[in-house]
Amino acid sequence: MTEQHRPHRDLAALQRRLTEFAAARRWEPYHTPKNLAAALSVEASELLEIFQWLTPEESARVMEDPGTAHRVEDEVADVLAYLLQFCAALGVDPLSALDAKIGRNEERFPAPGE
Amino acid sequence: MTEQHRPHRDLAALQRRLTEFAAARRWEPYHTPKNLAAALSVEASELLEIFQWLTPEESARVMEDPGTAHRVEDEVADVLAYLLQFCAALGVDPLSALDAKIGRNEERFPAPGE
Amino acid sequence: MTEQHRPHRDLAALQRRLTEFAAARRWEPYHTPKNLAAALSVEASELLEIFQWLTPEESARVMEDPGTAHRVEDEVADVLAYLLQFCAALGVDPLSALDAKIGRNEERFPAPGE
Amino acid sequence: MTEQHRPHRDLAALQRRLTEFAAARRWEPYHTPKNLAAALSVEASELLEIFQWLTPEESARVMEDPGTAHRVEDEVADVLAYLLQFCAALGVDPLSALDAKIGRNEERFPAPGE
Repeated sequence: MTEQHRPHRDLAALQRRLTEFAAARRWEPYHTPKNLAAALSVEASELLEIFQWLTPEESARVMEDPGTAHRVEDEVADVLAYLLQFCAALGVDPLSALDAKIGRNEERFPAPGE
Repeated sequence: MTEQHRPHRDLAALQRRLTEFAAARRWEPYHTPKNLAAALSVEASELLEIFQWLTPEESARVMEDPGTAHRVEDEVADVLAYLLQFCAALGVDPLSALDAKIGRNEERFPAPGE
Repeated sequence: MTEQHRPHRDLAALQRRLTEFAAARRWEPYHTPKNLAAALSVEASELLEIFQWLTPEESARVMEDPGTAHRVEDEVADVLAYLLQFCAALGVDPLSALDAKIGRNEERFPAPGE
Repeated sequence: MTEQHRPHRDLAALQRRLTEFAAARRWEPYHTPKNLAAALSVEASELLEIFQWLTPEESARVMEDPGTAHRVEDEVADVLAYLLQFCAALGVDPLSALDAKIGRNEERFPAPGE
């Protein structure tokens, strides 16, 4: 399937939509890297809030309740949205950054038996 | 360019590498959704820590210093890594979740002039 | 005014009220140190949320708006409540901990002219 | 025991020491309410980090290890320090705020049998 048929599932396309969304509403002055990092942290905490009183076992079953499942997906979307906007503001490529980090971790934490 | 030529830049491929990385080290028992949400929140705060005493203007220039730029990329990678592992643990598709959220926000916050 | 006339303003008395409040509602099984640390972190983020899009100057004037002032006080209360409950659960004395920390910081960051 | 004999254990006295500590190092320009709220949130996450991979049972035993116990006390001190500095910057009385909040919660969550 080409990107044309699934633009919504492409990370770069989503990042562009977020940038255009903010520009159309003139939110750019608020979107300093500092503010976006704060908003990212706040949204990550809202995701954690769903789990704060749950046992480990209960936390593995949150998607069974439709209301909680929607809340989880909504907070995941917010975290990813601010991460992408933060990266756009500073010219960071999140996929390259993660690729490099996994490489470093593979050296730092050798798998048993390797 | 096909995915074959840049597997490291594909979100799903990175998510698989993270899952295999954790499995090879037998870290799965620790990777409950609750613990991954906590770790995501902690990493987002480590990203914020870089900015906490900076002015808005200084925060826009953090990539000019190579040491700070590396720290930013490292924390972005950690946030994305835990977000992808959280989504893998619960079967959430982060790109679909963000696509749906942008759609809801376009209705909730109409652009001026629309 | 003596302490006898204002028991509610004493940190140890507030900590006892919180412990009794949780016990009367049988919330103790949820109040593991881990869960209380997560809740503390979530409440600190809710306080930060009030400030995330404000300029430094605007952030200094939040108490001028009665609604925002109430929200700030409410989140401060939540942060302090979970900090005190966390400390009660682990037998940590927060005032002694802070006293010791200030002492260490005075050695670590000598004041100019000292 | 009068306050004179235990100045270090009094919340207001600790708050004054923190204010004087920051003033002597000319840190006040950095201590906007927004920055202090961010720093408070970062420190609360550092406390959570200690617990992120622990089971509920392990989290109840962290004070048995002297190194972890010291780390817990250190992060508790940092959280309280930034909370007190935040409150000083905005003129919020944290004890009154908590007293009022407990009162509201007693009405909102009646104890069983009341």
